[in-house]
Amino acid sequence: MARRRQIYEGKAKILYEGPEPGTLIQYFKDDATAFNAQKKGTISGKGVLNNRISEHVFTLLGNIGVPHHFIRRLNMREQLIRQVEIVPIEVIVRNVAAGTLSKRLGIEEGTQLPRTLIEYCYKDDALGDPLVAEEHIACFNWCSQDELHDIQDMAIRINDFMSGMFAAVGIRLVDFKLEFGRLYEGDFSRIILADEISPDGCRLWDMTTNEKLDKDRFRRDLGGEVEAYQEVARRLGLLPEGGENAVLDLESHRKKKGS
Amino acid sequence: MARRRQIYEGKAKILYEGPEPGTLIQYFKDDATAFNAQKKGTISGKGVLNNRISEHVFTLLGNIGVPHHFIRRLNMREQLIRQVEIVPIEVIVRNVAAGTLSKRLGIEEGTQLPRTLIEYCYKDDALGDPLVAEEHIACFNWCSQDELHDIQDMAIRINDFMSGMFAAVGIRLVDFKLEFGRLYEGDFSRIILADEISPDGCRLWDMTTNEKLDKDRFRRDLGGEVEAYQEVARRLGLLPEGGENAVLDLESHRKKKGS
Ligand SMILES: Nc1ncnc2c1ncn2[C@@H]1O[C@H](COP(=O)(O)OP(=O)(O)O)[C@@H](O)[C@H]1O
Ligand SMILES: Nc1ncnc2c1ncn2[C@@H]1O[C@H](COP(=O)(O)OP(=O)(O)O)[C@@H](O)[C@H]1O
Ligand SMILES: [Mg+2]
Ligand SMILES: [Mg+2]
Repeated sequence: MARRRQIYEGKAKILYEGPEPGTLIQYFKDDATAFNAQKKGTISGKGVLNNRISEHVFTLLGNIGVPHHFIRRLNMREQLIRQVEIVPIEVIVRNVAAGTLSKRLGIEEGTQLPRTLIEYCYKDDALGDPLVAEEHIACFNWCSQDELHDIQDMAIRINDFMSGMFAAVGIRLVDFKLEFGRLYEGDFSRIILADEISPDGCRLWDMTTNEKLDKDRFRRDLGGEVEAYQEVARRLGLLPEGGENAVLDLESHRKKKGS
Repeated sequence: MARRRQIYEGKAKILYEGPEPGTLIQYFKDDATAFNAQKKGTISGKGVLNNRISEHVFTLLGNIGVPHHFIRRLNMREQLIRQVEIVPIEVIVRNVAAGTLSKRLGIEEGTQLPRTLIEYCYKDDALGDPLVAEEHIACFNWCSQDELHDIQDMAIRINDFMSGMFAAVGIRLVDFKLEFGRLYEGDFSRIILADEISPDGCRLWDMTTNEKLDKDRFRRDLGGEVEAYQEVARRLGLLPEGGENAVLDLESHRKKKGS
């Protein structure tokens, strides 16, 4: 493939210039970080699995009318996406108390919340992605009130859809993170779902065993990260039965890294 | 005075049973704490000054129609108040970036905010009074939507009034903290302003010198805490000219403590 211009390298993905204006290529790395990148590591094959899982979820969300950036998967680790102007807010949707919510408010992990909770964090690694309220978003104009409304509506729909999707395969959707962006069309812009949806940004618990099938395995040194991500992909029907290793694609990853 | 039942001792005040049902006596101590009580100290005469300043501000707010708990001042350190059920939310109103806002969002102290910002912290010392959003308040039902609306309306009016009041005496109202409570009247309750308004919970900067006239002098070891609190009281017309020591009332404070 011809040399492409790298636009951005983040903690888990790299963005390259796409083949047409307004498009980007999103490359999924195996790099894993936690606690605002204080903890770093690698989960072999994660990028391949997340690329596939995110493709799957975005496609299904598109089917119910959620607008998103995903165009098509290009290969094991790359997908073509629409370029957007990212809204600098991480939208966290929570159904069950866990992680920072449990810690900050002293609620035991696993407690079902009285109702779904949407939290916003200001996306700024240097500040540690601090929790903010709608008031801060409005005060600093990180997005307009209309945009925030669209984001909330989509976040709720996405939560309902994904809760159903995961419930169907014995997984409890505890919480997850979304990013949205502005797609410009002439002078106007509209908000679409961007980034990725994968076990990197979701808490997914097995419904019967409560086993964690997500990045908490890495955060908390539980081991079995690869197997957990694979299990999610497998339950979603994304792994050819008995062919787990096929998706790991370690060989081609090593080659790419070395190039 | 007859022995009274102590209801609660907090970081800066003590609540005693009042003379009639539904009333309390709020006693203002000289104790000062900061950073969630990790730092402790005493500001001599602070209680006397805060009792007087809070009386003054509550009375003026009552005059513009803000309902509040203050009934009357009883003596140098005590005031009679209406007992309420405190809403477990600290309401922080900010006009200028300072303190935790500056730190969390990386905004230089002293930066005028694009618009007034209302923040909410869940009042829980053990958790360090964590910042929360309206979503958390609704999710955990710390107060109803209607109550939060009343709180917001009052907070904005109080900010406007106090901005004017302090501007008139050369003080910039940077930010301040409010507490509200439910006053039960039969089966119904309404939200009224409670707790205190004093340099303990306000950031007050001299308009020309930017000198801090508030608890930040204690938090940041700037010295001159007593003088700063006195200066606020003096500018508000609460100190008899040339009679500063009168309000310090150290003697009677010591007696009370020893009793
Ligand atoms: N459609 C898109 N257009 C532009 N930027 C995007 C799009 N989707 C995601 N992004 C951004 O690309 C980056 C993805 O890489 P990632 O490793 O997740 O970065 P980060 O470490 O900043 O989270 C993120 O900063 C994300 O906000
Ligand atoms: N009118 C009122 N009725 C009942 N409680 C009140 C009233 N006004 C204030 N309070 C509560 O009384 C306490 C005042 O003491 P303080 O030293 O400020 O306590 P704290 O350390 O909890 O902030 C606070 O907990 C406050 O919420
Ligand atoms: Mg990211
Ligand atoms: Mg207090």
